[in-house]
Amino acid sequence: MSPRLDLGPWPNLGYAASRIDRAAEKRADAEAMHALEADATARWYVLGGELVAMRKSTSTFDPLFERADAHDLGPAGLPSVFLGMMDGAPRFALSIEAEAMEALKSRDDYEISDLRTIAVRGMVDGVHLPPLAEGKSLLLWHSRRRFCSNCGGQTRVVDAGWRRDCPACKMQHFPRTDPVVIMLTIDGDRCILGRSGRFASNSWSCLAGFVEPGETFEDAVRREVREEAGIVCGQVKYFRSQPWPFPSSLMIGCHAQALSHELVIDHNELEGARWFAREEVASMLARAHPDGLITPVPVAIAYHIIRDWVENGVEFD
Amino acid sequence: MSPRLDLGPWPNLGYAASRIDRAAEKRADAEAMHALEADATARWYVLGGELVAMRKSTSTFDPLFERADAHDLGPAGLPSVFLGMMDGAPRFALSIEAEAMEALKSRDDYEISDLRTIAVRGMVDGVHLPPLAEGKSLLLWHSRRRFCSNCGGQTRVVDAGWRRDCPACKMQHFPRTDPVVIMLTIDGDRCILGRSGRFASNSWSCLAGFVEPGETFEDAVRREVREEAGIVCGQVKYFRSQPWPFPSSLMIGCHAQALSHELVIDHNELEGARWFAREEVASMLARAHPDGLITPVPVAIAYHIIRDWVENGVEFD
Repeated sequence: MSPRLDLGPWPNLGYAASRIDRAAEKRADAEAMHALEADATARWYVLGGELVAMRKSTSTFDPLFERADAHDLGPAGLPSVFLGMMDGAPRFALSIEAEAMEALKSRDDYEISDLRTIAVRGMVDGVHLPPLAEGKSLLLWHSRRRFCSNCGGQTRVVDAGWRRDCPACKMQHFPRTDPVVIMLTIDGDRCILGRSGRFASNSWSCLAGFVEPGETFEDAVRREVREEAGIVCGQVKYFRSQPWPFPSSLMIGCHAQALSHELVIDHNELEGARWFAREEVASMLARAHPDGLITPVPVAIAYHIIRDWVENGVEFD
Repeated sequence: MSPRLDLGPWPNLGYAASRIDRAAEKRADAEAMHALEADATARWYVLGGELVAMRKSTSTFDPLFERADAHDLGPAGLPSVFLGMMDGAPRFALSIEAEAMEALKSRDDYEISDLRTIAVRGMVDGVHLPPLAEGKSLLLWHSRRRFCSNCGGQTRVVDAGWRRDCPACKMQHFPRTDPVVIMLTIDGDRCILGRSGRFASNSWSCLAGFVEPGETFEDAVRREVREEAGIVCGQVKYFRSQPWPFPSSLMIGCHAQALSHELVIDHNELEGARWFAREEVASMLARAHPDGLITPVPVAIAYHIIRDWVENGVEFD
């Protein structure tokens, strides 16, 4: 079976396919780092909480600032972090205080928006999304790690933003990356989509949840589908992964084989979930559903997991 | 090409294939939790840092203790955590202080060992390894999270050990799970194995490294192989995942396609790395290498990644 609707060329997955060379060996080298900051091609991304500062230009917006311009935008809440080299040029991210970012919204020459909106609307050239994701996750981690979780002492930034050390108890703290499984549960020509209360009322997507300590991600897929929808899953097939900087998730996209059929919905987690026929899902992807139901935007991995099943199907043993 | 040596039946991957039903919906229900603790079938795993307490019995050792016996082993450093239900019976993990655990080593009726040795030597029935991994990761996380990283205040345990809350700034802290990529880089009938200085001198394994914020795990594979061995990789194929409770990693096992061939080794990370022919690796898996070189034990996912390539090969597009 093939879908009857033409969905067009396959769009890019958001925040993925980074062109940044992280040049991790330079992080601990203070001299090299000073030289990179002073390099004429060095540029800064400027963030503040969920928001990103961009300069208005002709077609898309420009999120890159020279060093002095970046620091002029407002007082830095944190030291800048080294993201790596893009096409040979150093790239950093800097966080300015929330009030300074808010104040920039009234300026005609700047555009201020959150990273999700920037990605969905294509407000910047796509090459900027992965380094913005990298910078946002790192800076948000710093903003919540001023103190040592082991002894309560104040920590300090080392390695160009890639570690925080506790001078008191000597514990080293590394940035978090939280693995999250996100899956489409399949029974032949139908699949389960769910809705969170946070979604628009016509929007349906994959189920998802954090991987917990002590489980494989295949086990995490089976646990989450059973917890949220009451469905027993068998085989789990990995599809693709995606960094998701809200705040620092690693999305692990999968297709899962349904072994049972009766839905038992956990209404603490989901507003609803039901079986959808493949043709109906195809119409949702194409924005042609008779009741206006839709699947997520192509920035999100859910779109790709769903479309891959609709167009190519998934074979389980 | 098939290997000339018979490697026997495929052994189990350590700490994976958990039979625990985490029953996460019960964690926040204090009344349900009290009932589970009082259940006649409830049992506790007793840990202390890297060590696990076991009772000596006829064949393997028994790591399960009744509630009173578990608490008698020594003062608890932390509250016990709820692991879930195994075959309908509640399972918890309790951490006793390091000195109490050391003292138990002199007792004839107990065996005290670290979780890695327990797994490698098969000291307990394999069904206990996943809950022990779950408990060890959780308890170690608690031991280093007494203070709020956001405000420095003291945190308290909630949800039967699955969250810590800060009463001062209201931040909620969740257990960490750190995704780590571990990969075999392949060029037709040869692969790259490396050695860390921490390994026994005859032991060779896959390369590995933490996934960083803002990257897919395929990008993390390519970055790590280039950083550690100077090799450019193309396609990355996911193989299997494994919880690795040292202290709380999620190992993401992959095969990677080599696009370049000249090794440039980062001696800060590796003592050595080189290309190995498939026949040579087969002899290492079979413990029949003429110079006594070996690959990792079957408890580790590296064994499975390597053996899968040796026995089945990997096709890249």
